[in-house]
Amino acid sequence: METYMILRDLAIIILAAKFMGLVAQKCKVPAVVGEIVAGLIIGPCLLGLVKPSDFINQMAEIGVILIMFSAGLETNLKELKKSGLAALVIACCGVAVPMASGAVLYMCFHGFAGPGTDEFFRALFIGSIMTATSVSITVESLRELGHLQGRVGQTILSAAIIDDVIGIIVLTFVLSLKDPNSKPVEICLKTVAFLILALVGGILMYHIFKKIDARYPHTRRIPIIGLGLCFILSYLAEKYFGIADITGAYIAGIILCNVRDASYIDRKISINSYMIFAPIFFVGIGLKTNFNEMSTELLLFSLLFVITACISKIIGCGAVSKILRFNIPDSIKIGIGMMTRGEVALIITSKGLSLGIIDSSYFTPVIFLIITSSIIVPILLKAMYAKFPDAKTA
Amino acid sequence: METYMILRDLAIIILAAKFMGLVAQKCKVPAVVGEIVAGLIIGPCLLGLVKPSDFINQMAEIGVILIMFSAGLETNLKELKKSGLAALVIACCGVAVPMASGAVLYMCFHGFAGPGTDEFFRALFIGSIMTATSVSITVESLRELGHLQGRVGQTILSAAIIDDVIGIIVLTFVLSLKDPNSKPVEICLKTVAFLILALVGGILMYHIFKKIDARYPHTRRIPIIGLGLCFILSYLAEKYFGIADITGAYIAGIILCNVRDASYIDRKISINSYMIFAPIFFVGIGLKTNFNEMSTELLLFSLLFVITACISKIIGCGAVSKILRFNIPDSIKIGIGMMTRGEVALIITSKGLSLGIIDSSYFTPVIFLIITSSIIVPILLKAMYAKFPDAKTA
Repeated sequence: METYMILRDLAIIILAAKFMGLVAQKCKVPAVVGEIVAGLIIGPCLLGLVKPSDFINQMAEIGVILIMFSAGLETNLKELKKSGLAALVIACCGVAVPMASGAVLYMCFHGFAGPGTDEFFRALFIGSIMTATSVSITVESLRELGHLQGRVGQTILSAAIIDDVIGIIVLTFVLSLKDPNSKPVEICLKTVAFLILALVGGILMYHIFKKIDARYPHTRRIPIIGLGLCFILSYLAEKYFGIADITGAYIAGIILCNVRDASYIDRKISINSYMIFAPIFFVGIGLKTNFNEMSTELLLFSLLFVITACISKIIGCGAVSKILRFNIPDSIKIGIGMMTRGEVALIITSKGLSLGIIDSSYFTPVIFLIITSSIIVPILLKAMYAKFPDAKTA
Repeated sequence: METYMILRDLAIIILAAKFMGLVAQKCKVPAVVGEIVAGLIIGPCLLGLVKPSDFINQMAEIGVILIMFSAGLETNLKELKKSGLAALVIACCGVAVPMASGAVLYMCFHGFAGPGTDEFFRALFIGSIMTATSVSITVESLRELGHLQGRVGQTILSAAIIDDVIGIIVLTFVLSLKDPNSKPVEICLKTVAFLILALVGGILMYHIFKKIDARYPHTRRIPIIGLGLCFILSYLAEKYFGIADITGAYIAGIILCNVRDASYIDRKISINSYMIFAPIFFVGIGLKTNFNEMSTELLLFSLLFVITACISKIIGCGAVSKILRFNIPDSIKIGIGMMTRGEVALIITSKGLSLGIIDSSYFTPVIFLIITSSIIVPILLKAMYAKFPDAKTA
């Protein structure tokens, strides 16, 4: 009956997010950083005004879905095709290098272990936590900076999406080493099936939608049907194909990015996003953090975990970008853009916890990584773009 | 972890609501009716695709808050002042007549009981369930018909708000007859205190907001701060003053209805409302209904309960409007507009259930009343306005 209690939390979250977002912008830092810091301030970490709850998690989920859908809608398909192959290579190296580095870091703390042992398996698992780039914060920063449609922006976006898929396949393989019920071949087939479904279904949807759009342009039904499609695809991706729902939302956006009312839909979605849902997502990251239960060893491991995770993405993605003939500043931008981790890392960690591979103390480094990368990536990206403007879009 | 499950429900709700809303409009019936029917179709009543859940209730709550905030923002203060006294008288009669009728109906089923007895008390309680008009559906219908700002529209709106406050005072008095802990004087003082706080705080807020608005017109912070204010006032009203949160939202809207960016805020709020939240609220009403467990007696009582509740509002509000020199069609419109019942009736019923005054079977007639009034009021209002256009605004 006491549904009105959520109103208090909502008021605090949206006002704190806006206020800290404006403060951040005054300090020449992207607003997203301010919003995450707002979560740290009002959350259990500091003031304890708002506690994480199911409701906030669900609203945050819608928030990240809307952000990704919007990113998809703003996709320049021509740019995406141009950057497709490069993105694939960058994504592969961006999975391999962090995975190896994470495994080595774990062994540094717990001793070297030969292939096939439990410790080796655990090391691989810690490595796979490091693999999946969470692109939502990068997307929001690039959008704020006005570089989402540039070549670098599109490459990061595509690479992060592909990386997500590869990350999930890798995780499945790692788990299959231990779990007799896991079927890696089945997972690969499922992923391929989803991509085919998205392609075929997407073309079909696109044509149906184009007809509705031509008949009723600029009516309320257009963004509502679009949003419905986005929710359905996100749900199907996660429920039946084991692919993150945000990937589904991004694909839904790409499907609709060429209809005539794409920017009309995007405007309506963006208003929903910035008024309520997106602030809840970013504040929510801060809310989930609790620094109160930390041992020195855990602190040291967390610190190295964060450094390894960040540097390995810069090396994995940045170095390969350079090889792919991006110039040095652009390669660094790509490396930085791929550094962010988010809910996928948390999901993998919880999976490991529920299967008894790792214990709950590993949540601390993961949350540290999410917070740190979420804060430094927007700052670094802004600094890089200020110093080396993107020649094509600036 | 399975937050993605909500995406499925959301997709079904918003698409079904839009589809049935369009069908309703094709049938010359307001879209709201279609949305409620969509809830009946996809809910436990028929297809069982979506079940009511905490999340849907919470989203619906935000939906009704946004609708009322928007109604407040669209208020014409001059009209409101003009209709104020009439609204007060209409509201008083609109509480007294249904209350007496409800009590008599109960006694018809359970035998006459003298004052002071338990049965008499129960009869009064059933009467008080009938008192509170739920204006949200009427607001949405009037808006759809373009008559929210007219004299009749403003009178209905003000009367319904006042009626809500009176209804809560009456409920408190009725409960105080039974419950030694309830303090009717305290409740009256609280209500007065809230109105004073809203007036003083409102004037203060208005002036602060006007300054922000003058300095940063048409920026995102304007609607966000407005929404924050709305959530805070709704929360305070319900939490500390025992007044429905929707009343707080409406007052927040009135506070801001004269700032320069009022229509800018209203546009952003409306987009949030019609894309996601409002459909969930209207579909939610249908979702909560379950016709499967009905005895003949309960069916008969429910039928008479609905008829009594509807006619008593038409008599209570319509007749007194005629006396107040509204013409006959306008008096009927006011009577019809005041017929809708909603969440307040449900809240009062749950209150009675938790205090052991009535048993859970009384939910059935109340839900029947909500559904029936929600469906017939928009249809009747549309028919009345089609036959007797509002001279001033048509």
